[in-house]
Amino acid sequence: MLYEINEKALKLESEGKKIIRLNLGDPDLETPPEIVEAAYQAMKAGKTKYSSSYGENKLRYKLAEIHGVKPENVVITPGSKWGVFATMYLMSKGGGNVIIPTPYWTAYELIAKSLGVKVKLLKTELENDWKVDPEKLEALVDKDTKMIIINNPNNPTSKVMDAETLDGIVEIANRKRITILSDEVYGTIAFTKTKSILEYDEGCKHVLSNGFSKTFSMTGWRIGYIITNKLLIDNITKLNQITINNVPVFIQEAALKGLELRKQLATAIEKKYKERADMACKILSTDGLSFTKPEAPFYVFPKRAGLDSEKFTLELLDKGVAVAPGTAFGDYREHFRISLTVPRDQIKQALNIICEALK
Amino acid sequence: MLYEINEKALKLESEGKKIIRLNLGDPDLETPPEIVEAAYQAMKAGKTKYSSSYGENKLRYKLAEIHGVKPENVVITPGSKWGVFATMYLMSKGGGNVIIPTPYWTAYELIAKSLGVKVKLLKTELENDWKVDPEKLEALVDKDTKMIIINNPNNPTSKVMDAETLDGIVEIANRKRITILSDEVYGTIAFTKTKSILEYDEGCKHVLSNGFSKTFSMTGWRIGYIITNKLLIDNITKLNQITINNVPVFIQEAALKGLELRKQLATAIEKKYKERADMACKILSTDGLSFTKPEAPFYVFPKRAGLDSEKFTLELLDKGVAVAPGTAFGDYREHFRISLTVPRDQIKQALNIICEALK
Repeated sequence: MLYEINEKALKLESEGKKIIRLNLGDPDLETPPEIVEAAYQAMKAGKTKYSSSYGENKLRYKLAEIHGVKPENVVITPGSKWGVFATMYLMSKGGGNVIIPTPYWTAYELIAKSLGVKVKLLKTELENDWKVDPEKLEALVDKDTKMIIINNPNNPTSKVMDAETLDGIVEIANRKRITILSDEVYGTIAFTKTKSILEYDEGCKHVLSNGFSKTFSMTGWRIGYIITNKLLIDNITKLNQITINNVPVFIQEAALKGLELRKQLATAIEKKYKERADMACKILSTDGLSFTKPEAPFYVFPKRAGLDSEKFTLELLDKGVAVAPGTAFGDYREHFRISLTVPRDQIKQALNIICEALK
Repeated sequence: MLYEINEKALKLESEGKKIIRLNLGDPDLETPPEIVEAAYQAMKAGKTKYSSSYGENKLRYKLAEIHGVKPENVVITPGSKWGVFATMYLMSKGGGNVIIPTPYWTAYELIAKSLGVKVKLLKTELENDWKVDPEKLEALVDKDTKMIIINNPNNPTSKVMDAETLDGIVEIANRKRITILSDEVYGTIAFTKTKSILEYDEGCKHVLSNGFSKTFSMTGWRIGYIITNKLLIDNITKLNQITINNVPVFIQEAALKGLELRKQLATAIEKKYKERADMACKILSTDGLSFTKPEAPFYVFPKRAGLDSEKFTLELLDKGVAVAPGTAFGDYREHFRISLTVPRDQIKQALNIICEALK
């Protein structure tokens, strides 16, 4: 349904209709020019050859320093999605199942299906502040469970997991010897402190997936990284050797430049999205919709009792606004997801159209 | 052994020893500056967002025009290796086997092993001009055979398959309903006309794997493509969606610039490697080694009766020259592979050291 909405939006646009696109997680902000220049300088310096499937050492060292791990615990990937695929590919040989709290990013399930891995969904709800219930989680674990996949902060709710809940999940995973794959791509630019899986995990038993797309507006550059134990890092590297070989060195140099400037860049990006989120909350509150306040970019995931979000989403498109139906993120027919990834005035205009349509 | 040699070469270099590196297939030529500039202009124009998992339409259209197929038969991949992996991943669900003539690029076998696919090797020999014997090929086919993988022109022999042999392979594959995956990355810059699998294949039943690395000295950019039937193209695209998502658009723009300038660029590259190959043949002929004359860049694969190429290769490293032992390409202990991917004077110097070492 996510793809269907996007295709219909593109079609309407090609017919000359103006669509405000709040349906994708691709930020409107440009990649900072310092990052573009770093890539160009590296290309001109001839950094266009085959290179290590682990990633460039200076980037690995920098990430290790930032995250407080060893460089041997870091591998560079062509996007964080590749990191998730590679981890699941290697850890699910012979099948098994993975547990995923919902609402969730559908890519996790599509990857699992492609690999022949069974998915067990664990529903969380707005009314309970999107909290994972540890008892329900434990009840889903069986002898074939390979992994628990969490997305913290979460897409589509923009909720940061509270420390107590995360403590509970880690406790169960450790006791049952299950790996947690923690996708924290929205973590660096969250509005509240996000506790990373690494804070529990001196031995890097679990897996952190992260990237540069959201923090540095580098979605199309395709660069991310995995932090985990050396054995799994080595195996991901071997998989890289027979698939993508390496992330272009000039892209790694660009990402390194981003990290060097991260305080100023991430702060500016976070500030902009916080303003947008505050404005969106204000407008949406007047309409009696229920939602939790975003604690990270880029999404709001409101609920309206009785709503058929697929129907609503399609009708809204004809009014010039694209959003994503809740059903694209699990069993959430009464919800829809708004991406705050267009300029402020367009968000305002779109939210007013949404509120009008809900009357 | 290929990796071991490379690691040892790197170690010796780090100790200050000068090594002439003829062990890898990474050309010494820089990526042409027009290509670098095209990438930079695209980055500056904001082509840094998520994009289609099929690849950019204008690149697909250009490749379709060059190869005489429809754009729907083309998908852009992050390197030709990814195209091979994706094809094998999708075509070998449930196991089965693939047939690979040797000597061969080891990546094919490593991919197959990772996917749980059995490999049947078909040995070809220098004495028979590296010809695939159709009878032996047919004898290897069984009900579980999913694919025949050919590399034409071949790494490590630089031999272009003669039309009659290719006819025979295609006839068997079609009769037995087996897919041919034809890796033609050295084809564009071959010194003799290379018959492509596409010449047999109006319906795109078979699979062409190709890339920009060798033709445009773009190894580290990671861009290639697959041409095949629409169903497989769609499935590779779906796999792209859950793994690498897309090749960066600015890299696709760079590749497109390469294609626009391909006549001049490819001709210059081909000429340079032809000169190197001619020189290498001349020097190596004086020593009584046997080999077939390269018909494509970048390799010569000489044989010396009774040679233990692993031992020879390691000893040669201590004399300051890195080559690859024949055992890295199958059952070829008496062979070694020389990559002509360093400047002419260094090749000359290295070949003289090799001839001396063989005395």
